Amino acid sequence: MWDLAPFPIALSASPHDIFWNVTHRLIVREGRRTYEVEAEDGDQLLGALAGLGPARVDSPCGGKGLCGKCRLKLVSGRLSPPGGRESRMLSAAELEAGIRLACLAGMAGDAEIELPERGEASILSAGPESLVEPDPLVRTVQHALRAPSLEDQADDESRLLEALAGSIDPAPRRVALAALPELAQSLREGPALRAVVADGEVIGVSSDREASRALGIGVDLGTTTVVAYLLDLSSGDRLGSLSELNVQRRFGADVISRIEAAASAEGFAELRQGIRSQIAGMASALLAGAGAPAEDLIAFAIAGNTTMLHLLAGAPPGAIARSPFVPAFLSRRLESAAALGLASHPGCAAILLPGISAYVGADIVAGMAAIGLEDAEGNSLFLDLGTNGEIALGGKGGILCCATAAGPAFEGAGIEKGSGGVAGAIDSVWLEGGGLRYGTLGDIEPTGICGSGLVDALAAFLDCGIVDVTGRMIDPDGIVEEGIGGRRAYLDRRSGIYLSQADVRAAQLAKAAIAAGIDTLLEAAGCASSDVDRLYLAGGFGSLLNARSAARIGLIPAELADRAIVVGNASGSGAVAACLSRRALEDCDRVRAASSYVELSSRPDFNEAYVERMMFPEGA
Amino acid sequence: MWDLAPFPIALSASPHDIFWNVTHRLIVREGRRTYEVEAEDGDQLLGALAGLGPARVDSPCGGKGLCGKCRLKLVSGRLSPPGGRESRMLSAAELEAGIRLACLAGMAGDAEIELPERGEASILSAGPESLVEPDPLVRTVQHALRAPSLEDQADDESRLLEALAGSIDPAPRRVALAALPELAQSLREGPALRAVVADGEVIGVSSDREASRALGIGVDLGTTTVVAYLLDLSSGDRLGSLSELNVQRRFGADVISRIEAAASAEGFAELRQGIRSQIAGMASALLAGAGAPAEDLIAFAIAGNTTMLHLLAGAPPGAIARSPFVPAFLSRRLESAAALGLASHPGCAAILLPGISAYVGADIVAGMAAIGLEDAEGNSLFLDLGTNGEIALGGKGGILCCATAAGPAFEGAGIEKGSGGVAGAIDSVWLEGGGLRYGTLGDIEPTGICGSGLVDALAAFLDCGIVDVTGRMIDPDGIVEEGIGGRRAYLDRRSGIYLSQADVRAAQLAKAAIAAGIDTLLEAAGCASSDVDRLYLAGGFGSLLNARSAARIGLIPAELADRAIVVGNASGSGAVAACLSRRALEDCDRVRAASSYVELSSRPDFNEAYVERMMFPEGA
Repeated sequence: MWDLAPFPIALSASPHDIFWNVTHRLIVREGRRTYEVEAEDGDQLLGALAGLGPARVDSPCGGKGLCGKCRLKLVSGRLSPPGGRESRMLSAAELEAGIRLACLAGMAGDAEIELPERGEASILSAGPESLVEPDPLVRTVQHALRAPSLEDQADDESRLLEALAGSIDPAPRRVALAALPELAQSLREGPALRAVVADGEVIGVSSDREASRALGIGVDLGTTTVVAYLLDLSSGDRLGSLSELNVQRRFGADVISRIEAAASAEGFAELRQGIRSQIAGMASALLAGAGAPAEDLIAFAIAGNTTMLHLLAGAPPGAIARSPFVPAFLSRRLESAAALGLASHPGCAAILLPGISAYVGADIVAGMAAIGLEDAEGNSLFLDLGTNGEIALGGKGGILCCATAAGPAFEGAGIEKGSGGVAGAIDSVWLEGGGLRYGTLGDIEPTGICGSGLVDALAAFLDCGIVDVTGRMIDPDGIVEEGIGGRRAYLDRRSGIYLSQADVRAAQLAKAAIAAGIDTLLEAAGCASSDVDRLYLAGGFGSLLNARSAARIGLIPAELADRAIVVGNASGSGAVAACLSRRALEDCDRVRAASSYVELSSRPDFNEAYVERMMFPEGA
Repeated sequence: MWDLAPFPIALSASPHDIFWNVTHRLIVREGRRTYEVEAEDGDQLLGALAGLGPARVDSPCGGKGLCGKCRLKLVSGRLSPPGGRESRMLSAAELEAGIRLACLAGMAGDAEIELPERGEASILSAGPESLVEPDPLVRTVQHALRAPSLEDQADDESRLLEALAGSIDPAPRRVALAALPELAQSLREGPALRAVVADGEVIGVSSDREASRALGIGVDLGTTTVVAYLLDLSSGDRLGSLSELNVQRRFGADVISRIEAAASAEGFAELRQGIRSQIAGMASALLAGAGAPAEDLIAFAIAGNTTMLHLLAGAPPGAIARSPFVPAFLSRRLESAAALGLASHPGCAAILLPGISAYVGADIVAGMAAIGLEDAEGNSLFLDLGTNGEIALGGKGGILCCATAAGPAFEGAGIEKGSGGVAGAIDSVWLEGGGLRYGTLGDIEPTGICGSGLVDALAAFLDCGIVDVTGRMIDPDGIVEEGIGGRRAYLDRRSGIYLSQADVRAAQLAKAAIAAGIDTLLEAAGCASSDVDRLYLAGGFGSLLNARSAARIGLIPAELADRAIVVGNASGSGAVAACLSRRALEDCDRVRAASSYVELSSRPDFNEAYVERMMFPEGA
């Protein structure tokens, strides 16, 4: 495990955001560093900042508007006006000076903010990359070649390879075709060279300049969000990060709609070109922000689901969507970044991380590798829940994993008053003093209910008897009323937020799919849920999820309610580590090799468990 | 040694041709095969046909117009009118029917000719490729993959690699990025695949079609001439060949002028693009001639001098022209043909053969490998003479080689009545009945004197005392007269062909450079010229050269006059073999590894020998 601290998800542009489409730019200053983040109107600022990495602002309470620690200063532009709770937690002088709380303020326009400066040490210790010993697969080597003479006329390539043989292991065997012009050119300028070496091949050569750095970019390529982290490959320092919505999203929110769009040659070309240009653009922006020339960038390490990596690589993803769900490739790939359209200079490589199956991709592998699932003591369950819920069970015998088509209920889609995890979303519901209480993201008037709110609400409804174990809504206290489309239980009458009988059914189907997936993995591993030592919750929904509520509604086994660990954007953490370290890359390969994919659609025990898990558990 | 039979040089477009610039197309039909050759006005037909390979037409007398065996039929278009000798050797009926002799007829317009059909066996045995056991580095493998299922969802790449692991050694480790789209596509059409494998990587995939073949092209990339041979990589059969003048020649005749032109970015781009497009165009023409689709072409193997390969690879050649003469690369390279602009489909590789130094390139390595220089018993001298004379001495201790700047005298340039080896060139001179006799290429009126004629003439002049051992012209019989620029010895007064004193000096310098190169190599090897068991003469000039005359003027050691073996276009033979066989490729690598380059410009013993060899030998 490289990183004990959770690696926050880039909430700013989580799957939820697809229902909004007004995008703002957020300029973030922290000491001499400047970051730029894209966020949607109404997004919680804390979420928007999460893409910049862990603990950019302190938020010990987890962004629930309780601790008042996530202070920042609005320098220019516009944020949502301070709400009641925020005004109570800040002094009048602070409000006057533009101080805001990141968990309660929302995006309302382009804005520039300033974060309180912190000691360099605390920034470093907060980042997972500082815990990874830099030993990158793609690296630079400086060397002054011996001058040729009439007595020693060895060609440039031979002299370079001979010089590098002593400095790098394994010794490179050739200079790539694309690097030959640079090689011949640079050597005429002087004997001191900077060679970019990737896995036994010299892919780039330049004259050794004093100021040149070896930079890499870790990319978490999500269906909805693309997050890129700029890294110094020598020190391991993170120099900046950028989070954007995936430009492919206009073809549809989920991977299936992208695959369908890729069935036509034009659609395929547009999807491929779109994501390539987007990542290239993000890289340019990050380099510009760090004041680095393009040639300093020598590597990308890219984690993404199998479909995203296929579209990036230009491999037709069609067979991923049709039984028996066979991808074109899954192994780790080392490519020229130029061949992938990510860079225009030859001396830059792109590592595509390995995946396990059509629906358990490199993002999950990177996440599992980042938390060290294959080496953890005892049994560990790993959940990355979204429209597809990826589930993995790691133990002595290796890793079993599966993917369940949970449907988009936990993303807030298909729920009548559903919402993404944006400001105004009810994200927590609880019983207090015999009545329902709720909290919203950004502490503002509720505008809908997001996944974690849905799980909480169902748990509360079960506890107070509004929903019975079969999922039927009953009405002990006149809370439930008959609407046009069936029964409704209101969370807030004033703003009209409710769950309908149909919503409960949708949530029931979703939780049954996930719970049955967990059951099937446990059964396949011959392992009881009580034998599971810990439950890792990854991804955006997982970061907000209340594990006790999840256990109450039967989404996760009851025993695991107190064994949950929120790991945030484990995939991004894995991509960063893979860019920095050969060991981290090998960890990804090991995870892949240790993993067996369990295809649920062909297993009778899954179908049985699915029907069984449709019921909600009896209360304690 | 793969090929005991000499492999004729493509005389049609030899270094000589640069002084003419009217180009004709020659369509050649032989049974169901059709070839197309480009040749200059006045070119001897036999020479133009040589590019098609050995013994396309029988010419036991070596094209001297003596045996009358090289009959062919003019179907349409125009050749030079039959001369006296040709008319005597053919019957009136034959002449009426358009029958001509290839050694005496010359190009005089576009023409279509028909060669007498021969048994398939004789065609095969005539080609060197039939002596090379096909075992190509780049090859196709057919395989029907196991169908995926819900129980076996391995990705396409893994299933293909697993299937190939049993069929090919070494087992391929990955499918190239560019082949992933084809892989995914083809497998959806059916399980039967045809994979193109190059050195551990699958570079192309297609559905297995009944009719698909694995074709390769061996290229002899000369400064003046480009010859391409289309090969069936399974049978080793040659399916066609094409010879064209290098499009780069408008930048200058020799490598130095090309290097100078490449100093500007535009010139470099034009030289690079020019040769890439030319080879790609020749490949298309050859494939069209064989009725093969582009995708059947899976490999190029390219021999060329170091400068030509640099321009092709896009590596700046500037340092080749400046002391200490250091190329960017010399090792054998395996590249994507698409990356070199030679093919537009991904499943085609290009092998660039290895070179030894800036001026002893892959063409010489291929030639030495083709004749088996490193394995020959005893000591062997290898000469490839042109503007640069490349000399190699192979023996027990390896191969020593050097390059001498002989100047263009033996190419006919810088000689007052000099000429390339084209029709009308005096190519042989001898003393008969106390007088000078000469022969011309094409047996027509003399228009000039080519390299072999120059050597013969000098030998005759020395024998009859017109030139003394110091190179001074004297006049025993009134043959020599005083011209405006000095003395002249006429070979033919009527047509005004003579050698001047200045011509003799130019030849003296050229022969001294080559002889001193031989001396230096012999001395470096501690070997006397009498210890040399054989002398291989490669290249166009070498093919016409009379070894006794060469010994008489001191161009080669006297002992070797009777030990000369004409090997013709050994470089082309080597490229063909390298395309067909891994062993031949390894032979090239072995030759390179066994070779030490001797830089003459820094050796005092070379300068001494050079001065010493300026004299002509005393007569026997």
